Amino acid sequence: MKLTKQSDDFPQWYQDIVKEADLAEPSFARGTMVIKPYGYEIWERIQRHLDDRIKETGHKNLYFPMFIPSKLLDKEASHIEGFSPEVAVVTHAGGNKLEEPLVVRPTSEAIIWGTYAKWVQSYRDLPLLYNQWANVVRWEMRPRLFLRTTEFLWQEGHTAHQTAKEAREETLRMLEVYRETAEQLLGIPVIAGRKSESERFPGADETYTIEALMRDGKALQAGTSHDLGQNFAKAYNVTFLDPDGKETHAYATSWGVSTRIIGGLIMTHGDDQGLRLPPSVAPYQAVIIPIVGDDTQGAVAKEATKLRDQLAEEGIRVFLDDDDQSRPGFKFNKWEARGVPIRIELGPKDLEAKSVTLARRDQDKKTTAKLSEVVKTVTKMLDDVQSSLLKDATAFRDEHTHQPKDYESMAKLLSDQAGLVKTYWCGEEACEQKVKQETKATIRCLTLEPVKNPGKCLVCGKVGKEQSYWAKAY
Amino acid sequence: MKLTKQSDDFPQWYQDIVKEADLAEPSFARGTMVIKPYGYEIWERIQRHLDDRIKETGHKNLYFPMFIPSKLLDKEASHIEGFSPEVAVVTHAGGNKLEEPLVVRPTSEAIIWGTYAKWVQSYRDLPLLYNQWANVVRWEMRPRLFLRTTEFLWQEGHTAHQTAKEAREETLRMLEVYRETAEQLLGIPVIAGRKSESERFPGADETYTIEALMRDGKALQAGTSHDLGQNFAKAYNVTFLDPDGKETHAYATSWGVSTRIIGGLIMTHGDDQGLRLPPSVAPYQAVIIPIVGDDTQGAVAKEATKLRDQLAEEGIRVFLDDDDQSRPGFKFNKWEARGVPIRIELGPKDLEAKSVTLARRDQDKKTTAKLSEVVKTVTKMLDDVQSSLLKDATAFRDEHTHQPKDYESMAKLLSDQAGLVKTYWCGEEACEQKVKQETKATIRCLTLEPVKNPGKCLVCGKVGKEQSYWAKAY
Repeated sequence: MKLTKQSDDFPQWYQDIVKEADLAEPSFARGTMVIKPYGYEIWERIQRHLDDRIKETGHKNLYFPMFIPSKLLDKEASHIEGFSPEVAVVTHAGGNKLEEPLVVRPTSEAIIWGTYAKWVQSYRDLPLLYNQWANVVRWEMRPRLFLRTTEFLWQEGHTAHQTAKEAREETLRMLEVYRETAEQLLGIPVIAGRKSESERFPGADETYTIEALMRDGKALQAGTSHDLGQNFAKAYNVTFLDPDGKETHAYATSWGVSTRIIGGLIMTHGDDQGLRLPPSVAPYQAVIIPIVGDDTQGAVAKEATKLRDQLAEEGIRVFLDDDDQSRPGFKFNKWEARGVPIRIELGPKDLEAKSVTLARRDQDKKTTAKLSEVVKTVTKMLDDVQSSLLKDATAFRDEHTHQPKDYESMAKLLSDQAGLVKTYWCGEEACEQKVKQETKATIRCLTLEPVKNPGKCLVCGKVGKEQSYWAKAY
Repeated sequence: MKLTKQSDDFPQWYQDIVKEADLAEPSFARGTMVIKPYGYEIWERIQRHLDDRIKETGHKNLYFPMFIPSKLLDKEASHIEGFSPEVAVVTHAGGNKLEEPLVVRPTSEAIIWGTYAKWVQSYRDLPLLYNQWANVVRWEMRPRLFLRTTEFLWQEGHTAHQTAKEAREETLRMLEVYRETAEQLLGIPVIAGRKSESERFPGADETYTIEALMRDGKALQAGTSHDLGQNFAKAYNVTFLDPDGKETHAYATSWGVSTRIIGGLIMTHGDDQGLRLPPSVAPYQAVIIPIVGDDTQGAVAKEATKLRDQLAEEGIRVFLDDDDQSRPGFKFNKWEARGVPIRIELGPKDLEAKSVTLARRDQDKKTTAKLSEVVKTVTKMLDDVQSSLLKDATAFRDEHTHQPKDYESMAKLLSDQAGLVKTYWCGEEACEQKVKQETKATIRCLTLEPVKNPGKCLVCGKVGKEQSYWAKAY
């Protein structure tokens, strides 16, 4: 199948690539998806990296049930207001109608803070630093594979602290873990910032986010970290005796990254030939394609096998595509679509010259390497691909970040989906809403650092005390 | 809290230990549980081991949604008959009543084989060797933490094959992986066997099982592997063209191990002081308890920290319990209850003698070791604990495996919950049912190998063509 070009129809290109790279497919129940082995292996590598980082930063994993009695969910007012239109509800089980319906978790603050009430009595019980890997359900009106699915997989951290300061530090610590993961593991450059009030997580005092720019000029929220203040502690009555014997409500944070980030990975690096994967998460880092003609058992095949074993021994994830039912050209396209970072071609001429041909997926360039040096060359090349994908994406992001001088230019850039638009903002929701109505763009985030020399809000002309990034978003 | 004695009230002992070892607790929705960090870390180690073995045997992970449209579940008659009384049903989502109710997966054969229909066309598409880690829901009338919970965690493998022979080999291969995991990782000796027809998985041609004997004389099914024949391929219309161009239904297997096995771990090794954990899955393999009196910053504390760092550097999971709010005796009890394999005591006298006192959790024995040799001694001791727990449990199992001569003794042993009872069995369900009615015991499994010299069925006196293990069971 030929992929739709990005420039012709980006949404269709996205659908094509998810299918052609064998990442996922829609399942039977509306909005759900099967994550196929090739896509799931990418997720496993993201999981492993994040799980290590979550543990290094002092957290432990645990597991809370996915069923939340609906009365328990109802306790935090803005939380339930935000989530109730999206929940799935179990009304029957074991052949009977349930006395109280069970909500399938859209997120776990309710059940976790309902439980923390039992776990926290004294300041000595704090902090609680816990995380879980789980599936959650949010009913989506316009589902899209990875980006918005009714059920998705994620990790959700939920911590409880003695002071507001500690909770804020925790929130920012995990934001930084997410930023580092996006950039170093996935090669996705992100802007780490705060959400405006209207875009906050329901029940949060402050929501922090990492925002990435996709190749169609839209932004994607790739991870969030929330400072929940004492809102959940008050709703669920989680108090502790502080060192002075005073009863105090605990301070909460929560933070999550989901399978959605795979959508971000696709739309950050993918091109008209298909996926481009950073070596750190690629199921195969290199694929060997022997050019054997009809002699499938000959010298080329033998050398290809030897090479595969050498690379594998060095810990490189390598696949030898020796399927004799398809031609090299077909294989080139197939593995390009799947984003394998390096293709190693080995034909009779290569063998004669005691060399191989190397094609980097991130560049339109072929090189040769001596057979005796392939392992060394490939190892180095993988490092190069990893860093150059981030570099290229960063350059793209910077080229598509605009700082217009007036509202007219701002509105045009946003309507045209030209990328990120950076402006000062007065902080008034009225201006935010006006932009949204006129351009369909929203504030993706505000800068982390306070603004020292405010410029003018381009919408209303008042003092722009915040610096904000605007864009249309997924 | 003092633990109930096993001999006084085994079920209460079990509840006490789950609580005191901080493994899990009941949650809000009926029959659900929170797996607490200490319990979850044991599960993570089981997961990691099993996941490695599943991949080594050629499988890949993927993920299917948990919602199954009820019509899809209904297609395999005996499957739906077996599971329909246990399912939870989502009837409302996104604020509306659903047109078709969604069943929360009790197991995933239905959705997976519904999907395999799209993935399989030719014999070249086979085998499919896939596994997923997931939560599943089965409504339990009498829930018990880990053993029977409404929601539990597991892995479920689902494979598709070209021939009956391949499917049978796969079924037995994974049974062997489970046997090895139970014995080598968890120190749980098991009997690997076949289920009788009445105990088979709904929709299976043959169910294989690993059965373990608990310390109260009851058996626990710790993992199952099913040869599903062509039943699901026929129900979901999964056919392929074989090498001769003939349309054929694929052959299926499925196999699973769940968080239930943690219940088996507790009841295999636990004693009146609490849990006893095999070092391979223990969150902490050793705990250091400094005996410091009031001098919490003195020489003992310093040496304890140094020792902790030395052990950690060697990859031993060690915890230094330097909490100055509780006394050594309290700490001894606490870590005994939590089953830490080795306790290292370090007091002023030990320090003077340049030694430590080592207490093995699996034996009522203290030894001393020179400070300079602690790392070496502890490393070796951990190996000893790992093998001796399996050895002790095997001896217990063998001592509690009986081969009665007549039905009267058989019935008494079973009614008394005396352990496993091994007899010949004619293969008739009537005999199986009679034993069940009179003793509440069931056939746990039949031997894998066919019986060469049949004895008499103790129930009816006819030819006992099967050798069977009977017991009351969890």
